Amino acid sequence: MDIPPCAFVIFGITGDLAARKLMPALYALHRTGALHKDTQIVGFSRRDWSDDDLREEMKKALEEYDSDNFDEESWKTLAPRFSFVSGSYTEAETFKGLKEHLDSLDVENHIFYTSTPPGTYSDIVKNLGEVGLNREGTARVVIEKPFGHDLESAKELNDIVQANFREQQIYRIDHYLAKETAQNIAALRFANTIFEPTWSAQYVDHVQVTMAEPIGIGGRGSFYEEAGVIRDVFQNHLLQLVALTATEPPSRYDAKSVRDEKVKVFQAMKCVNPSQAVIGQYTGNGEAKAYRKEEGVPKDSRQGTYAAVELRIENWRWANVPFFVRCGKRLKSKSSEIVVVYKRPPHIPFDLDKPVKQDRMILRLVPNEGITLRFDAKRPGQGINLTKASMDFYYDQEFNRGNPDAYETLIQDVMMGDPTLFMRSDEVEAQWRIVKPLLENWENSTEDPAFYEPGSWGPDEANELLAKHGRAWHAPATQ
Amino acid sequence: MDIPPCAFVIFGITGDLAARKLMPALYALHRTGALHKDTQIVGFSRRDWSDDDLREEMKKALEEYDSDNFDEESWKTLAPRFSFVSGSYTEAETFKGLKEHLDSLDVENHIFYTSTPPGTYSDIVKNLGEVGLNREGTARVVIEKPFGHDLESAKELNDIVQANFREQQIYRIDHYLAKETAQNIAALRFANTIFEPTWSAQYVDHVQVTMAEPIGIGGRGSFYEEAGVIRDVFQNHLLQLVALTATEPPSRYDAKSVRDEKVKVFQAMKCVNPSQAVIGQYTGNGEAKAYRKEEGVPKDSRQGTYAAVELRIENWRWANVPFFVRCGKRLKSKSSEIVVVYKRPPHIPFDLDKPVKQDRMILRLVPNEGITLRFDAKRPGQGINLTKASMDFYYDQEFNRGNPDAYETLIQDVMMGDPTLFMRSDEVEAQWRIVKPLLENWENSTEDPAFYEPGSWGPDEANELLAKHGRAWHAPATQ
Repeated sequence: MDIPPCAFVIFGITGDLAARKLMPALYALHRTGALHKDTQIVGFSRRDWSDDDLREEMKKALEEYDSDNFDEESWKTLAPRFSFVSGSYTEAETFKGLKEHLDSLDVENHIFYTSTPPGTYSDIVKNLGEVGLNREGTARVVIEKPFGHDLESAKELNDIVQANFREQQIYRIDHYLAKETAQNIAALRFANTIFEPTWSAQYVDHVQVTMAEPIGIGGRGSFYEEAGVIRDVFQNHLLQLVALTATEPPSRYDAKSVRDEKVKVFQAMKCVNPSQAVIGQYTGNGEAKAYRKEEGVPKDSRQGTYAAVELRIENWRWANVPFFVRCGKRLKSKSSEIVVVYKRPPHIPFDLDKPVKQDRMILRLVPNEGITLRFDAKRPGQGINLTKASMDFYYDQEFNRGNPDAYETLIQDVMMGDPTLFMRSDEVEAQWRIVKPLLENWENSTEDPAFYEPGSWGPDEANELLAKHGRAWHAPATQ
Repeated sequence: MDIPPCAFVIFGITGDLAARKLMPALYALHRTGALHKDTQIVGFSRRDWSDDDLREEMKKALEEYDSDNFDEESWKTLAPRFSFVSGSYTEAETFKGLKEHLDSLDVENHIFYTSTPPGTYSDIVKNLGEVGLNREGTARVVIEKPFGHDLESAKELNDIVQANFREQQIYRIDHYLAKETAQNIAALRFANTIFEPTWSAQYVDHVQVTMAEPIGIGGRGSFYEEAGVIRDVFQNHLLQLVALTATEPPSRYDAKSVRDEKVKVFQAMKCVNPSQAVIGQYTGNGEAKAYRKEEGVPKDSRQGTYAAVELRIENWRWANVPFFVRCGKRLKSKSSEIVVVYKRPPHIPFDLDKPVKQDRMILRLVPNEGITLRFDAKRPGQGINLTKASMDFYYDQEFNRGNPDAYETLIQDVMMGDPTLFMRSDEVEAQWRIVKPLLENWENSTEDPAFYEPGSWGPDEANELLAKHGRAWHAPATQ
């Protein structure tokens, strides 16, 4: 199905996200011929750029962030389709200017992308409504994360967005949903016979979800001090991975059914014992600055850069199966994976020196996107002695090509009008509801966070969280 | 556990099996220190060899068939422990001589191995009984395959063997049972949680078992004309692979429980529509001789060198699941594998151009011993499109060492007194009972076999056997 033409309006086009992610994604669609030849890209920002300034800057961005793919010829056919509108997100007057500009482009469909600080989302949406750039059937708005700061602010933002656009026009981004491995969870579970029958409390002991980053907070000190790890990645990416792992099979894989099922899981999900959740913060060493010494961070900050939380899903399928979820900055390596740890077999007929290990299915998003099944096999030689063996599937080996970037997938979906991989209003509110007791418990306490060394796998307290259940974190694959 | 010492008596030590298989196996046990230093090896044959002749010949055999491992030093410490007895299998007098020789060796345990033509087994066993070399607690007898020629002769042979030895002293060989991958089927199924729940008629569509050999019958024309493919490999190796795939979990992995479960499966197993079984025979081409032109084979022979048979196992677990079993000579490549083909998922939520493929679990014995799981995965890119992907496990990659040869495992088991990997009397009779209608149907007919080209995967009729069920043979991996 061809992608229809549109005017793709990027608010905050001078920012980092536009340069690093949106430009390479649009450019990839252009290079592969997916982008309609009549599609126009409109930049909007406070700066006083000309169309040519924009072209120049976007070319620089591609040369820097997409140097492997950049080629002068194909850029030449894209560059003329850029134009720039200067203005303020809070002034309705400038949105009138935007409207006039869009009318002059003579492209019926408009996509508005908020690549701007979260505080601007309401103004942008209101002003788009104000000047009539919200017509159902032609206008779509893409809201970047974070969507709200807590349950209350998310509800407020939903109210404002929904006062100006209908739900089907609204595309709330969580780019993790568009990663190939994340999407493959549904294919794996629902297009195969062999995995789903054991995908329940009857056979699964517990599930682990890990998202580890070796980097610190970089220059984002004041942003991060406001957000912290729970708002930054736990409430969105990690809860989404839990949901993809845990949903019931939808009757159809379309936006309504898929999101209905996710909302059902979120509604059944809760953070057990919020007071036992581990909130950690990285210390410093020779090379790496402690979080409390980062620019924009108070010396006595209690903000979490690491969290390890036990979730439960109170439904028939997952009753009593803990979902242990952890994420953090300045950890040992970049790793993002879901590990399904199965129960031991009900009976072992062999004489063994030690108990059999538990089978595990590892869905790796980063590094080496793929799947590993760990199981017990006979060690070659006399008698039956067991050892852990594994079967592996690697995306890049199997398909021998790179996966499209998540933003490329998402932008194409918005242009096609497919919101399956975007978050619905009830979904994002349900996610905030899950983390609410966690945030409140932490914000009402005066405890210090659990400190951890940079380059470790997080604080000891996170190991204890599992050890008290007789379980242990799976050691993630390192690159 | 250390292997106790014994006198290991090989009847027919001048033959091919002793040179190719038994010597390398005994030598491997010696090299690795597993063979007890007091163990003696006694050769028995009609020839008029001296002890030194035997040593000379056995050294030659090792240099030829085990050249990678042969080393003069370790041979020097084994050679003195060989001795030779000349005699006839039918004369009790020579067995008295054997007894005197064994008494002179002063090793309490005796293992008698019939590496001789099948017609001699009864005489050897009777004569061992005659001279009192059958004492329970010290004597064990290993009977090579084939065990009988049909149900009646197998019963007769069982009667004779059991009149002279107790069942626990009798070790009937099917060396396929000692292959690592065959043994691993039990480990895979019963030491893991993830495979067994879908291992039944509820999830399995059908099972395929293949044993293909590229070689012809070599110089064995007159033997093969007597036996044919059903007796040569189908009745033993292939039925054993079916049984290992299909048994219920034993309560303990010991000789009694494992063999009880196999007998239960054999008793529930039958060849459906023997008249529809495909019996094939290879023709010739430029390089390869047709079976009917092999030495010792009549020009109008109807003997099968290929068989494709549908079996059913009439029990709760496998009701209505066809087991398609095929084997043959002069096929495309050496391949031995079990393929479990799963049913399609009950419901597919995705919009697909074509139906999903069926998941398959492939247990490979030859080549590349290992396991492959074939499943559907998302093809990278927009939307959900599926493609078949696989997870692989290779024995040699995982363990980074060669597997012990089946004969090494089996000889060690006999020395240790563990009959788990050997066939019990009721087991071998049950196997003959399964092939009886197949043999009778074929022997009562006058039809020509289904001819097939050398280097093919067998006759077209074998494809039709599956095609009429809407199924197709899995293409085996080639080296």
